[in-house]
Amino acid sequence: MKKTDVLVIGGSAAGFVTAATAKSNYPEKDVTIIRKEEIVMIPCGIPYVYGTSGSTDKNVLPDAGLNKLGVNIVIDEVVSVDKDSKKVKTKKGEEFEYDKLVFATGSTPAVPKWLKGTELENVFTIPKNKVYLDELMVKLKDCKKVVTVGAGFIGIEMSDELNKIGKEVTVVEMLPHILGLAFDEELAVEAEEILTSRGVKLVTGVGVKEILGDAKVKGVMLNNGDIIDADAVVLSMGYRPNVKLAEDTGVAINERGFIVADQFRRTNIEDIFAVGDCSEKRDFITGKLSGIMLASTACAEARVAGMNLYGLSSVKTFPGTIGIYSTAIGETAFGAAGLTEKQAENKGFEVVTGSFTGMDRHPGNFEDAHKQMVKLIVSKDSGIILGGEVIGGKTAGELINVIGFIIQNRMTIADLLVAQIGTQPMLTASPAAYPLIKAAEMAAKKLK
Amino acid sequence: MKKTDVLVIGGSAAGFVTAATAKSNYPEKDVTIIRKEEIVMIPCGIPYVYGTSGSTDKNVLPDAGLNKLGVNIVIDEVVSVDKDSKKVKTKKGEEFEYDKLVFATGSTPAVPKWLKGTELENVFTIPKNKVYLDELMVKLKDCKKVVTVGAGFIGIEMSDELNKIGKEVTVVEMLPHILGLAFDEELAVEAEEILTSRGVKLVTGVGVKEILGDAKVKGVMLNNGDIIDADAVVLSMGYRPNVKLAEDTGVAINERGFIVADQFRRTNIEDIFAVGDCSEKRDFITGKLSGIMLASTACAEARVAGMNLYGLSSVKTFPGTIGIYSTAIGETAFGAAGLTEKQAENKGFEVVTGSFTGMDRHPGNFEDAHKQMVKLIVSKDSGIILGGEVIGGKTAGELINVIGFIIQNRMTIADLLVAQIGTQPMLTASPAAYPLIKAAEMAAKKLK
Ligand SMILES: Cc1cc2nc3c(=O)[nH]c(=O)nc-3n(C[C@H](O)[C@H](O)[C@H](O)COP(=O)(O)OP(=O)(O)OC[C@H]3O[C@@H](n4cnc5c(N)ncnc54)[C@H](O)[C@@H]3O)c2cc1C
Ligand SMILES: Cc1cc2nc3c(=O)[nH]c(=O)nc-3n(C[C@H](O)[C@H](O)[C@H](O)COP(=O)(O)OP(=O)(O)OC[C@H]3O[C@@H](n4cnc5c(N)ncnc54)[C@H](O)[C@@H]3O)c2cc1C
Repeated sequence: MKKTDVLVIGGSAAGFVTAATAKSNYPEKDVTIIRKEEIVMIPCGIPYVYGTSGSTDKNVLPDAGLNKLGVNIVIDEVVSVDKDSKKVKTKKGEEFEYDKLVFATGSTPAVPKWLKGTELENVFTIPKNKVYLDELMVKLKDCKKVVTVGAGFIGIEMSDELNKIGKEVTVVEMLPHILGLAFDEELAVEAEEILTSRGVKLVTGVGVKEILGDAKVKGVMLNNGDIIDADAVVLSMGYRPNVKLAEDTGVAINERGFIVADQFRRTNIEDIFAVGDCSEKRDFITGKLSGIMLASTACAEARVAGMNLYGLSSVKTFPGTIGIYSTAIGETAFGAAGLTEKQAENKGFEVVTGSFTGMDRHPGNFEDAHKQMVKLIVSKDSGIILGGEVIGGKTAGELINVIGFIIQNRMTIADLLVAQIGTQPMLTASPAAYPLIKAAEMAAKKLK
Repeated sequence: MKKTDVLVIGGSAAGFVTAATAKSNYPEKDVTIIRKEEIVMIPCGIPYVYGTSGSTDKNVLPDAGLNKLGVNIVIDEVVSVDKDSKKVKTKKGEEFEYDKLVFATGSTPAVPKWLKGTELENVFTIPKNKVYLDELMVKLKDCKKVVTVGAGFIGIEMSDELNKIGKEVTVVEMLPHILGLAFDEELAVEAEEILTSRGVKLVTGVGVKEILGDAKVKGVMLNNGDIIDADAVVLSMGYRPNVKLAEDTGVAINERGFIVADQFRRTNIEDIFAVGDCSEKRDFITGKLSGIMLASTACAEARVAGMNLYGLSSVKTFPGTIGIYSTAIGETAFGAAGLTEKQAENKGFEVVTGSFTGMDRHPGNFEDAHKQMVKLIVSKDSGIILGGEVIGGKTAGELINVIGFIIQNRMTIADLLVAQIGTQPMLTASPAAYPLIKAAEMAAKKLK
C-alpha cells in the first residue's frame, strides 16, 4: 500500500496541469499521477505527426516539468476506487491511499454502434495513444485512397496532413459545411475552398451509411447510395468521455455522459474532483450543459482544481466553458470563440452581427500579408459580444484569443468602439481598419 | 465661403478615422477633411519604405474609403481659425464655415535646440511627408555610414531597414538600453542581441553632444568625447505635437504641450475637439498626463470624437491612454502594453512580476516555432495587471493585444489563472505551458 496526498488519474493535458498546479500551490503535499501511457502524446499535435513532423517521437509531452516539481509518475491503470476507504487499485496490483482524488481520465474516439463495417481492417480512429498512432503510420504507408468521416477540426487537420504526404483524401461530412460547429456558413465556405484547392475532396451534406469491405475496407457507402473507394477510413466522429471508472466509484454522471463537477471542479463526492474531457462542461454564456472538449478548457479546469484542492478560493473558480478553437490550413488560420450566429439564435438570443475583411499587415502589399476577416456575434439587447470568428494568417490564432478575452470579460460593442489596439505594419492590420474594430462598427450600425 | 458641418484639420490616422466615424454615424452631415498632403503616408509603414518595400508609393493611405463614404477631401493648410464666427482660413485663400471642428494636426519630429549641427546637409528626421521621404531616399543612395540618434521603436525600425540595404548603421541612445520606454532591461537586452547579430552597431548609455561637419555631416560627437564617422545622421528623438494653430485659436494647451481634451475629446472651446498626436493623453492606469503618441491611441480617440460630435454617449468615452507598442526585428516580434516594471515602481505602485519563456508552437520543434517570453507587471495590493511585455514570433503582435485587453478590463492575476485560451499546435504555445498563463502563475506565487 502506497500513500499519496493528491492522486490524479490520467496524465494528458488535464492530468498534467492538475498535478503541476497542485504541487506548486501545495509544495508540502505528495502529488502522484497514475496514467496508462509510458509516453504521452501532445494530443493536439497528433494530426501533424503524419505529415509535418513525420514521427510520434517528435510529439511527446515531456515528463521533465513534472519531475522537476517532484510529482510522482506511475505508469499503470486504475481499475477501481473505494471512495469510503479512499483507496484505489491498479491493473498491476498496486494499492494507493489518497487524500484528494482527481479524475482526469479524458476521452476516447466515438465509434457509433449503428455504423456497419467499423471492425474491418484499415478502419481507424485517432486516439491519443502512441502505440496505436505508430501502427496507424505503418499501415497508412500502403494506402493510397483515404476517406475521413467527420469534418470537425481534427478530421480536417488529419485530412490535410494525409493529403500533404500524397494520399488521395476525401472528407465526408453530414452537415452542410465543414467545421460546422465552430463557424457560420460564410466562413466555413472559405475553409472549404482552401482545402479543396490543396487537393482534398469534400463531400458535405450527406452522411456515411456503411463501411464496405470483406476483411479489409474497400470503400464507404453514403446515405445517398454513392460509394467512395477507400484503402483506409479514418473515423473522426467525436470523442466520448471516459467515465466508467467514476461511475463505478459512485460519482454522479450528467445526462450528457460527463462527470458532474462544479465551479471548483468538485464532484458530488467529498475529496473527489474531475477535470478535462471526462468532466462536465457548462456553457459560459448560456449556463447549459455542453459537450465541448478542448485542451484549453481542460487546462483551465485543471488549474482551478489544482488551486482549490485544499481550501477554496472564491476568485479562482471556473466560470463556464467558452469554446475557443483554431486551426491552420497551409498559411491560412481559422479561429472561433463563443457562439456562432446560428448557435446564438438557436439558444434564444436575438443577435446582430458585424463582419469586416481587411489585411493583416499594413500596407497590405507586404509579402507575408494575408487577408483577415472578422465576424462578431452580438446580443441585441445589451450589445454584449457572444462570439467571434476569424480567418487570417497565422496571427489569427492569437487574435481569436483577443476575442476570447472580450467574451470572458462580457465586453460590449461600445467597449470595443473605444478600445485601444496595438498595431504595427509587420505584425498587424492597420489601426484605421483593424478588422475586429471595423466589425464592431458594422454591428453598432445595426444596433442603432 | 464654403460650408461644412464637420471640419477635420489633418488627414492622417486621427483625421482619417474621425472623418470616417463622423460620416458613418451622422450620414446626413457634411464632413470635410483639410490636409496638407496630396498623398498621405501610412505613418507606421514609413521605416519599411527604405528596405522592405522600396518605395513610398507602396506606403499610401488610400482615399478610396473616405470617397466612398462621401467625405470631402481638401488639399490645403488651415492658417487660422475664428472660434466665434466658426470659420477657418486656408493658405490657398479659401474660407470654410463649420459647425464642429476637430484638430487632428498630429506631430512633427523633435529637433532639440541644444544640439549643434542639425542644419548640416544629410542630417535628417522622419516626418510623415512623402516629398521629404522621397528626397531622403535619393540622398541616402550615396551614403554608406549612417548614425541614428535615438533608439525608440522608430529609430530601431529605421536602423534595421537601412542595415538591410547595406548601410553601416550605428544607433546612439542616451538611456542604458534601446526601447527603454517600453521594455524592462531583460527584454531590451534580447532586442539588442538580435539587432547587433544582424549587423547594426549600438552605442547605449551615452548621449550625442554635437553633429560634426562643415556644410555636410561628417560625424557625430558623443558626450564621452568619442566620434563616430557618418555620411548621414537620422534624428529619431521623438515628436512634438502640432498645436500652434490651436493655441492661436484660443484652445487650451496642457503643461506637456498637448491640446487639452476630455473623455469625449472636447477641448475647452464649445464645438472644438482634438484627437491624435496633437491632443492630450492621460495614462489609463495613473490618470496622469502622458506623452505617448501611437496610431492605435490616435484612432481610438478619433472614434470617440467621431461618435460624440452631435450628442454625447456615456458608454463611448475614452478611458485613458494605454501604450500598446509592437515591433519586429527580422522574424522576432517585441510587444509591450501598459507600464513597465520600472515605470510602475516610479509611479508609486508596489509591484510583483511574473515571467515565463516557452515556445509559440507545440510541439516546439515545428519549423516556424519561435521562443516566446512573457512578463507581467502586477499591482501587489489588488493583483491587477498593470503591464506586460512579450518577445516571440510574429504572433506576439496580437498576443500583446490580448494583454492590452487584459489591462483595459482591469483583470487580475486570479482572473488569468482561470482564463481559457485557445491553443493549436501550428498557431500558439501549448495549453499546458502557455507563457501568458505561466507568467501569471509566477506572479501569483509572489502574491501569496
Ligand atoms: C487529434 C486531436 C487534436 C486536437 N487538437 C486540439 C487543438 O488544437 N486545440 C485544443 O484545444 N484541443 C484539441 N484537441 C482536444 C484535446 O486534445 C483534449 O481536449 C485534451 O486532450 C483533453 O485532455 P484530458 O487530459 O482531459 O484527456 P485525454 O487527453 O483524453 O487524456 C486522458 C488520460 O487519462 C488516462 N486514463 C484514462 N483512464 C485511466 C485509468 N483508469 N487509469 C490511468 N489512466 C487513465 C488516459 O490514458 C490518458 O492519458 C485535440 C484532440 C485530438 C484527439
Ligand atoms: C516612422 C513612424 C513609425 C510609427 N510606427 C508606429 C507603429 O508601428 N504603431 C503605432 O501605433 N504608431 C506608430 N507611429 C505613431 C503614429 O504614426 C502616430 O501616432 C500617428 O501618425 C498619429 O496620427 P495623427 O493623425 O494624430 O497625426 P499625424 O500622423 O502627425 O498627422 C497629422 C496630419 O495633420 C496635417 N496638418 C497639420 N496641421 C495642419 C493644418 N494646419 N492644416 C491642414 N493639415 C494639417 C498634417 O499634414 C498631417 O496630415 C509611428 C510614427 C512614425 C513617424
